[in-house]
Amino acid sequence: MKILPLFLATIGLMLSVNLASASEHPKLLVSQADVVDMRAAIKKEGLFKQAYQSKKTSVDQQMTVAINVPLPKDGGGGYTHERHKKNYKLMYDAGIVYQLTQDKKYAAHVRDMLLSYADLYPTLPVHPKRKVGKQNPGKLFWQSLNEAVWLVYTSQAYDFILPSLSASEKEKIETGLFHPIVKFLSVESPATFNKVHNHGTWTTAAVGMTGYVLGELEWVEQALYGLDKSGKGGFLRQLDELFSPQGYYNEGPYYQRYALMPFVTFAKVIQENQPERKIFEYRDGIVLKAIDTTIQLSYNKLFFPINDAIKSKGIDTIELVNGVTIAYGLTKDAGLLSIAKSQNQTILTGDGLKVAQALDNSLEQPYHFKTIAFGDGNDGKQGALVIMRQDVGGEQALLFKPTAQGLGHGHFDKLTWQFYDRGEEIVSDYGAARFLNVEAKFGGRYLPENNTWAKQTIAHNTVVVDEETHFNASVKKGNANHPELLFFDKNENVTVSSARIDSAYEGVSLTRTMALLELPSLEQSLVVDIFDIQSDEVHQYDLPVHYKGHLISTNFDLATQLTSLPILGEKNGYQHLWLKSQAQPKAGLSQITWLNKNGRFYTQSSIMDGDASFIFTQIGANDPFFNLRNEDAFINRKKESKNHTFVSVLEPHGEYNPSKEFTIDAVSKVTQLAHVKQKNIDVITISVDKQQYALAINNAKSLNKNASFTVAGKTYPLTGRFALIKLAQ
Amino acid sequence: MKILPLFLATIGLMLSVNLASASEHPKLLVSQADVVDMRAAIKKEGLFKQAYQSKKTSVDQQMTVAINVPLPKDGGGGYTHERHKKNYKLMYDAGIVYQLTQDKKYAAHVRDMLLSYADLYPTLPVHPKRKVGKQNPGKLFWQSLNEAVWLVYTSQAYDFILPSLSASEKEKIETGLFHPIVKFLSVESPATFNKVHNHGTWTTAAVGMTGYVLGELEWVEQALYGLDKSGKGGFLRQLDELFSPQGYYNEGPYYQRYALMPFVTFAKVIQENQPERKIFEYRDGIVLKAIDTTIQLSYNKLFFPINDAIKSKGIDTIELVNGVTIAYGLTKDAGLLSIAKSQNQTILTGDGLKVAQALDNSLEQPYHFKTIAFGDGNDGKQGALVIMRQDVGGEQALLFKPTAQGLGHGHFDKLTWQFYDRGEEIVSDYGAARFLNVEAKFGGRYLPENNTWAKQTIAHNTVVVDEETHFNASVKKGNANHPELLFFDKNENVTVSSARIDSAYEGVSLTRTMALLELPSLEQSLVVDIFDIQSDEVHQYDLPVHYKGHLISTNFDLATQLTSLPILGEKNGYQHLWLKSQAQPKAGLSQITWLNKNGRFYTQSSIMDGDASFIFTQIGANDPFFNLRNEDAFINRKKESKNHTFVSVLEPHGEYNPSKEFTIDAVSKVTQLAHVKQKNIDVITISVDKQQYALAINNAKSLNKNASFTVAGKTYPLTGRFALIKLAQ
Repeated sequence: MKILPLFLATIGLMLSVNLASASEHPKLLVSQADVVDMRAAIKKEGLFKQAYQSKKTSVDQQMTVAINVPLPKDGGGGYTHERHKKNYKLMYDAGIVYQLTQDKKYAAHVRDMLLSYADLYPTLPVHPKRKVGKQNPGKLFWQSLNEAVWLVYTSQAYDFILPSLSASEKEKIETGLFHPIVKFLSVESPATFNKVHNHGTWTTAAVGMTGYVLGELEWVEQALYGLDKSGKGGFLRQLDELFSPQGYYNEGPYYQRYALMPFVTFAKVIQENQPERKIFEYRDGIVLKAIDTTIQLSYNKLFFPINDAIKSKGIDTIELVNGVTIAYGLTKDAGLLSIAKSQNQTILTGDGLKVAQALDNSLEQPYHFKTIAFGDGNDGKQGALVIMRQDVGGEQALLFKPTAQGLGHGHFDKLTWQFYDRGEEIVSDYGAARFLNVEAKFGGRYLPENNTWAKQTIAHNTVVVDEETHFNASVKKGNANHPELLFFDKNENVTVSSARIDSAYEGVSLTRTMALLELPSLEQSLVVDIFDIQSDEVHQYDLPVHYKGHLISTNFDLATQLTSLPILGEKNGYQHLWLKSQAQPKAGLSQITWLNKNGRFYTQSSIMDGDASFIFTQIGANDPFFNLRNEDAFINRKKESKNHTFVSVLEPHGEYNPSKEFTIDAVSKVTQLAHVKQKNIDVITISVDKQQYALAINNAKSLNKNASFTVAGKTYPLTGRFALIKLAQ
Repeated sequence: MKILPLFLATIGLMLSVNLASASEHPKLLVSQADVVDMRAAIKKEGLFKQAYQSKKTSVDQQMTVAINVPLPKDGGGGYTHERHKKNYKLMYDAGIVYQLTQDKKYAAHVRDMLLSYADLYPTLPVHPKRKVGKQNPGKLFWQSLNEAVWLVYTSQAYDFILPSLSASEKEKIETGLFHPIVKFLSVESPATFNKVHNHGTWTTAAVGMTGYVLGELEWVEQALYGLDKSGKGGFLRQLDELFSPQGYYNEGPYYQRYALMPFVTFAKVIQENQPERKIFEYRDGIVLKAIDTTIQLSYNKLFFPINDAIKSKGIDTIELVNGVTIAYGLTKDAGLLSIAKSQNQTILTGDGLKVAQALDNSLEQPYHFKTIAFGDGNDGKQGALVIMRQDVGGEQALLFKPTAQGLGHGHFDKLTWQFYDRGEEIVSDYGAARFLNVEAKFGGRYLPENNTWAKQTIAHNTVVVDEETHFNASVKKGNANHPELLFFDKNENVTVSSARIDSAYEGVSLTRTMALLELPSLEQSLVVDIFDIQSDEVHQYDLPVHYKGHLISTNFDLATQLTSLPILGEKNGYQHLWLKSQAQPKAGLSQITWLNKNGRFYTQSSIMDGDASFIFTQIGANDPFFNLRNEDAFINRKKESKNHTFVSVLEPHGEYNPSKEFTIDAVSKVTQLAHVKQKNIDVITISVDKQQYALAINNAKSLNKNASFTVAGKTYPLTGRFALIKLAQ
């Protein structure tokens, strides 16, 4: 509950606000100067004019239909819900078209709709479909979150048309609509308003933006510092708490993208109206970092689907289009333009015009996707999300997830990983079990299987102890504990990271070390995975690999279920797995090869002890309504063990090209794999394509300059965290 | 065994061949005049220069490796097999680069390789990996087909470098290599050479092309008219027999594409060397029709995967690139250019240059995909392949398949259908069970499951009687019987076709009528399917729909297998199906909705009698090595029935867009469906989106001008084959 000194400094600045400017509109995301430029731009060919024409056509078409402001009745996805959503979008769009065309019919349409709302709003009770105890109710919508979003847009629409209104219209709209809705969202909903959570962000943004339009700067103060203006709640506190210092949002990219919208929008509005607050410099530029991090958390235009995430969400979502547009307006970073180009959407604002003109002039430069560990938590020390990238015959990305739980949308997947290559998922995460807005699928909400499958540990690529889920599936326990990032280090060819958690299971310590390598002298990337488990008690350890593709071969015999499929287990997600095949490979190197739709083969080579087994599964059991996707996995199972180390290597290889009728390198080039622990140093030796490499990784807490390791009878110094050496033949 | 008069006419023309030109090279696909143009073209920027440079770089790189002409040892996919394939490609490529650069090192490389072959070839016995009784053996390759392909390329390579050779080199290569290989492929393999089959086409093309290069016009005669020059075998006979009059190849598009290569190549060579044969006018222009039909047999750049077909094969395959290039050279049809553009490959020939220059100048026009029935068989009367196309909010294609069996690669799928929309498969065909050239998957050959699953009737979207496959899976019986196309008719909004087969099952008559509709006044396409079965005996009838997508909802209760999956049957493909769920909907309209990856919903609405049931299945049982794709189907099952009519409507609707967070029209708009038979007229009434339509189809053998039908108490005349009327509300 600390209040940063910067808060106080900012409070001091308040007095310098130019109150006179309150009568000049528009003044939120779009300034009067912007409007001048935009009116000029729509007279010239280019992206901006195209976007304007498309928007105007859409608005013209919608305005042929009579205004409809229905009495709120339906929940999410229902008619009145969707109508009120469409209304705010139409008001916003008609408002900007009014500013650009100066044609009063657009202003009149917005005015008439606002007057209808001003008639309706004061009569409304809380929404009939509110979910008591589950979410804060709205009046127009079943939850107050939608109400705040509505106000973020509608306050801007009002800002656009204000100059066209008579004094009495203005009076009616402000007293009938804006004052009561702000009151409802702020003083009448103190818990949400003060909440350090994305619902709070939408609410404070909505109230603050309305405050700027109406000249009610007290509302702005409350939006920034909480209802009591103490700084314990409010927008700035949210900026302090909800992002890590690097701009990573605790719930993961899917919700980061969503949360970004009010942060970016309100920050831009503050910047326009009170530049002296230096909001974009706040917390070392946290808003811009949050935008950039959202981009970094993507692969091939889609967000990494950790936690509850709809997998088709990517960088072209409107939230990030807004974010990139505003960030470019501030920074003129040409790398952002290549992202904007792939977003292929032009925003009708002053910043949108800058982006459009820059793209018209082909100023874009490649955006640099980084290999990086994003610290998690407001201090950046509550675990981390690690992204390793490479470009070896196609872009690879490895995501390693020793993050904190990520609140209610977090999954119980400590130390899980995902792998991507040539544009596709190779080792995958299920994401959320949800068909967004599809009424027939549980009303379009999170499916029951989101809890029974998608959040469970077995649905991820990490160790499950005794078929139990991490933290016994307790969000509270998960939020209270997080993994520790032991190290993250890299050089030109190698990225290595290691993390540990001792609290996922009582009495079991889980340490995972992952490395992404490019083998010098071979056009070959490899993922090395060392999963070390320590326990004084006997347990069963399952390590799944949820692979994407068609199983091609195994170098061991399979006992496949031919005429009947049983389920793998009874609970914790196991009840959703069909047991398709089993195998107990002999001691040595076990290899499993699959073919991805990108046309490449992938082989997982594991060191087996002759006792562990493989289980091949498919999702889909206990799924009466066909809610789950029938995806495949194999599980390395070690029974009745105390300490155990799973060691494996994932190798992309070859190409399957039935169109051009060739297949090359369908067989793994890895022929040997060994692992020894020499004090704190893991030494992995890999024979691949007739060459032999050793990867040494020092897991010591602090590095010792005299450390060394021995391989093939020869001793090598290891002063740093790791070394990759090519052994003589 | 008729010999067409044109044959005799062509034989007469032989005498006019200009023997003097035999000393001028190159003279096969590329003429000396072409070479002049091509040498000029590589000095200017454009597609042709790019293709040349890329080819030259590849050749330069391959020429850094020593020539290797290994003793034949391995079967398909093995080292020596692949090496000899690479050798002919390299010789061809180095040959054309020699012609373009005039740099003798390229000719020398080809020469040295040919000399090595000339040393080796006379010493070779038939290939050690030949498959006795299964395929005709080669010497360099395990089957003579590969040997013929090798010669088609190598004869051209020789043609390119001939001017660079000394007399003794020429002598050695011709006597050591070309004479013996031609002898081996012709007089020593009379069965293959004379066979009216694509293996025969490759062989006659190879021998004929070599004949032109070496000036051995007797070989050309044999190639054209068979070894005995009677016209009972040979290239012209193949052109008569293997294509229907419209250019449809009996085995379907996958093999049509493959067969096309020698037809097109040899035809072009004949045209260049003996234009007086007017080969491209032969049989009313059958070669060009075959090329065009191959394009027509595609959707979204991929071939319709009927019969044994690898599904990723499409119009960018080299065979069709060659075909389109040569066809454009002859016709200058700008529609072909848009196909060439999407193929994105430039051939280094005179025609390739014409295509490249036309594309450089953006001369391409849209290619017109047609709604058409391609008659099957050499007379075009052995059934038909029907393609219906539409563009209603995205391109739709319906394939209806009352074709003949299509020889050994044909599937037992009489009257099956497939449906495509917005670029994706919606109602699909499994294609072939094969991982081409993937050694681990049954040596890359057709998998055992190609017979046990992919060819079986249940693997297709057509009726299975008593769980038996059409013709009891006898290829011989299939080849001897074919469906009858009853009619094919269309107008602006409707295409209708009907076909019957009485021989697939003894004592059972199967008649299917399919229609693709665009409903006037609604932006709505519909597929109507009436499958009528007549029998005097009691049978079980299964009608599967192999759907692509995720099951969203059913309007009836499902009894889903939750904890154990049984198999559906014991044989004829049923043994590969897991029984996932069952339902016995009550009488009336049953609806099944799925969501395709194209983001659209599809609902199959069926008229149920309260007695029939639905079975939901997944492929994958009895599949010990994970050879099959785990795809989904539902089966409408009617037990213990004599006559039965399955009536259903498939309806694309709505959109699922989780990226932009909206879902519209996820629920079917079809609310009622009825079917009555009024004499020979099927009358289907459909209520959709609050409107009611009637579709009447007259199945009478010959139309009666006085025919009429009655719907909702009103009588309508039906002078034509069908009528679609909108009923008053």
